[in-house]
Amino acid sequence: MKNLNIVKVGGNIIESGEDLQAFLDAFAALSAPKILVHGGGKLASQLAERLGIPVKMTNGRRITDAETVEVITMVYGGKVNKSIVAGLQARNCNAIGFSGADGNSIRSIKRPVKDVDFGFVGDVVGVNSELIDKLLSLDITPVFCAITHDGKGQLLNTNADTIACELAIGLSKEYEVTLNYCFEKAGVLLDINDETSVVKEIDTSKYSELLKDQVIADGMLPKLENCFYALKNGVSKVQLGKPQMLQNTTTNFTTLRL
Amino acid sequence: MKNLNIVKVGGNIIESGEDLQAFLDAFAALSAPKILVHGGGKLASQLAERLGIPVKMTNGRRITDAETVEVITMVYGGKVNKSIVAGLQARNCNAIGFSGADGNSIRSIKRPVKDVDFGFVGDVVGVNSELIDKLLSLDITPVFCAITHDGKGQLLNTNADTIACELAIGLSKEYEVTLNYCFEKAGVLLDINDETSVVKEIDTSKYSELLKDQVIADGMLPKLENCFYALKNGVSKVQLGKPQMLQNTTTNFTTLRL
Repeated sequence: MKNLNIVKVGGNIIESGEDLQAFLDAFAALSAPKILVHGGGKLASQLAERLGIPVKMTNGRRITDAETVEVITMVYGGKVNKSIVAGLQARNCNAIGFSGADGNSIRSIKRPVKDVDFGFVGDVVGVNSELIDKLLSLDITPVFCAITHDGKGQLLNTNADTIACELAIGLSKEYEVTLNYCFEKAGVLLDINDETSVVKEIDTSKYSELLKDQVIADGMLPKLENCFYALKNGVSKVQLGKPQMLQNTTTNFTTLRL
Repeated sequence: MKNLNIVKVGGNIIESGEDLQAFLDAFAALSAPKILVHGGGKLASQLAERLGIPVKMTNGRRITDAETVEVITMVYGGKVNKSIVAGLQARNCNAIGFSGADGNSIRSIKRPVKDVDFGFVGDVVGVNSELIDKLLSLDITPVFCAITHDGKGQLLNTNADTIACELAIGLSKEYEVTLNYCFEKAGVLLDINDETSVVKEIDTSKYSELLKDQVIADGMLPKLENCFYALKNGVSKVQLGKPQMLQNTTTNFTTLRL
């Protein structure tokens, strides 16, 4: 099977012009086929604030009302996605921007209301891996923003980590997929303030150990759960670290395997 | 040669929810291959106003400063483009949204400063008809917003009529292209207040006659110049009228030929 790199780039990198350019250098240098996934939560919150739209969060998760899904569509699908695509084109990487509606690439359903009404948030139900595979064969690099659709005309807000994970699983039938989470940290850290405390390899038993010892910080927990979910569903390898990880110019990052 | 319909939808249709849905019904019913082109100028002006960004126009043309190109990217590339794409997917039309940066589909250069500095406005220099042709062959319906790129990472504002025209010319080597301008009027009118005064057929000599008699209203002049430019450069036919024109449920529209 051919190799495929799927790279999720974190919010703190996107928000800094300089870091984003350095990341795009690293991503563009990766050999194809490859896919990029991004969010842009803080930039969306900034625009919402300028427009006087209240940002509602519960346990760090955004409540997406009708006005907010419009803001997200403008920021993720417009501003962030198109500037990344233009930046990749300038680096001779033939990028095309996608929301889940484009090419019916990621279908979701509006999250049912239980304790919390998250509003226009979508839980992924299907990835159009056939079409994405065809586009990859044309040497196209898809750039996904964190938006899906319900197939009935409604755009829905979906976590970018989840989108990367679902794309990786969907494409693992055709490809040997490496799922890369690039962010501002060097990986899973034993001490969050010490960049040299990276746990370089985590397998299922090491993961249980880390959980038991409670060394994994709050924000990292859902990310690692996503990673092991991907590994259990066909993804070959997951890596977490700084953009240099993509260029093999550092060994200081975390690799996850079953 | 195979037929290809390229449809530019006007701003007044986009801005009204109801009219847009009716237009999408008509467009989705057109047989493939087909391409949609849209702008969204008034919606961009509305967002600029809410953000306190002054809208600068000269002779009806927008001056696009750095903040404005960002607003345009959010509105054209995000809000309008993604909601059209989701709306077409709901109608079983496999749409993918494009700016000119996506797939390096429309390359432009920043307009040189002469009497007026238009800012981040792009004049089209090339259409990637090879890639667009491949996507059409995959049964994809590209939906273009009025944004191009310079290939060096800069997004540029380009008139949607011009984009439709340049796409039509670029694809006329491979296809028998009909270029359709859909708007709120029934076509070229002899009396702007009388919808039954449509000039049904305009060829080069009829056009000279209409120009001489000064019956063509101001806004229509650059549009018709675009149309004849397209016809002289390989496009088979140009049509102007209401969305019903696409469905052949009316004969009340304008057809232009050389």
